[in-house]
Amino acid sequence: MCDTCGCDHGHDIKEKKVVDVNQSLMKANEEAAAGNRNHFNEKGILAINLISSPGSGKTTLLEKTIESLKDDISIGVLEGDIETELDAERIRAKGVPAVQLTTGGACHLESALIHKGFHSLEHQLNGKKLDILFIENVGNLVCPSFFDLGEHIRVVLISVPEGQDKPLKYPKAIKTSHVLIISKSDLTPHFDFDMEKVKNDALSLNPSLKIMVTSAKTGDGLEDWFAFLKTSIKKRIQGV
Amino acid sequence: MCDTCGCDHGHDIKEKKVVDVNQSLMKANEEAAAGNRNHFNEKGILAINLISSPGSGKTTLLEKTIESLKDDISIGVLEGDIETELDAERIRAKGVPAVQLTTGGACHLESALIHKGFHSLEHQLNGKKLDILFIENVGNLVCPSFFDLGEHIRVVLISVPEGQDKPLKYPKAIKTSHVLIISKSDLTPHFDFDMEKVKNDALSLNPSLKIMVTSAKTGDGLEDWFAFLKTSIKKRIQGV
Repeated sequence: MCDTCGCDHGHDIKEKKVVDVNQSLMKANEEAAAGNRNHFNEKGILAINLISSPGSGKTTLLEKTIESLKDDISIGVLEGDIETELDAERIRAKGVPAVQLTTGGACHLESALIHKGFHSLEHQLNGKKLDILFIENVGNLVCPSFFDLGEHIRVVLISVPEGQDKPLKYPKAIKTSHVLIISKSDLTPHFDFDMEKVKNDALSLNPSLKIMVTSAKTGDGLEDWFAFLKTSIKKRIQGV
Repeated sequence: MCDTCGCDHGHDIKEKKVVDVNQSLMKANEEAAAGNRNHFNEKGILAINLISSPGSGKTTLLEKTIESLKDDISIGVLEGDIETELDAERIRAKGVPAVQLTTGGACHLESALIHKGFHSLEHQLNGKKLDILFIENVGNLVCPSFFDLGEHIRVVLISVPEGQDKPLKYPKAIKTSHVLIISKSDLTPHFDFDMEKVKNDALSLNPSLKIMVTSAKTGDGLEDWFAFLKTSIKKRIQGV
């Protein structure tokens, strides 16, 4: 009991109701995610979900990836944002099809929206087959971690300027991802950022995490990322 | 109707239920926020809610503020995080009382938790009066914007490394804040960051926004921030 206002902090009934609705929503999302994954599998598409804080360099990584791989690999992009078409425009300027998904306030993408966006992207393809579908999630290191979109690979980016404490502070994103990209590595000299600590913290949460250190500015580490993508496509084709 | 799986994207009933529960939750939060504001007013405390992406420099700004002002102003801090006590430990190391509020997965602070945390902080004070209560929200530029915590002033931080497109992409945080701090300004030469564009974009969303450009590293702009805090305390005392 609070001695100032007399409230007892008790909102049990409301909380129970929210848990029920949330569980029902999460279940609907899981079903839609399984549907998306089936679509992607039937069409032989590798789907990759990119998660990070705002400004960790997701769009820039995509731009570099498209520049380097678009002659060999057919790429499509779903761009998640709360508002604006800015990112889809950046991607289209690189010559690959992109659909902007604006959530109108929601802090993450959900599978039903991916489903709609994927069909919209297919209209732009005119029958051309995709090798990779990149899904760039809303800039948010928290909520997107909870939502399976039907992707095969989840990639989380943490940029050097964000600080070395981020894996421990945002464990869900680390635990649910297959790959951690530590981006903007060229800025390491300007920050108190212990690269080995960050790697070790991340691996303590997720021992099977693949970690890459990249700089879109200098190009460091990008070849590893491109090689990883090519190998992942090959594995999918071979059903590994 | 989707031609691959036959679904009709229709989840109207579920969505209606969620809207009802969310409205009820938001209303409960607003009531608790009004209660918090009453508490703070009765005790003559200026409450400031800091919002930003992970790693924009909220805790560092608080450390610098405490170092500079703690001899003149009585400061207390509520530290919001999903997990870990890291930030409260950093604040306590500077010699001011701090309570860590871990949300256990939730992506933002709510007023009921602030209420509990504030009473817990009061126990640490042993009757000492606070001039300023800083509430450092969970690192997330989206969800915290929707929740009034009973603060008098909301401050949003955007750091230079996050990129110049952030005000337009995260309008709710800009629209609901009184102050925008553009942090890590020492890094501007390393980024394609047009300071005037960022300021103009932010002001187009919120013409009464007060904007400060700071660097915790070089100290640039911090005096403006400290002066703003002192003036705001004075205004509260005078009831302006």
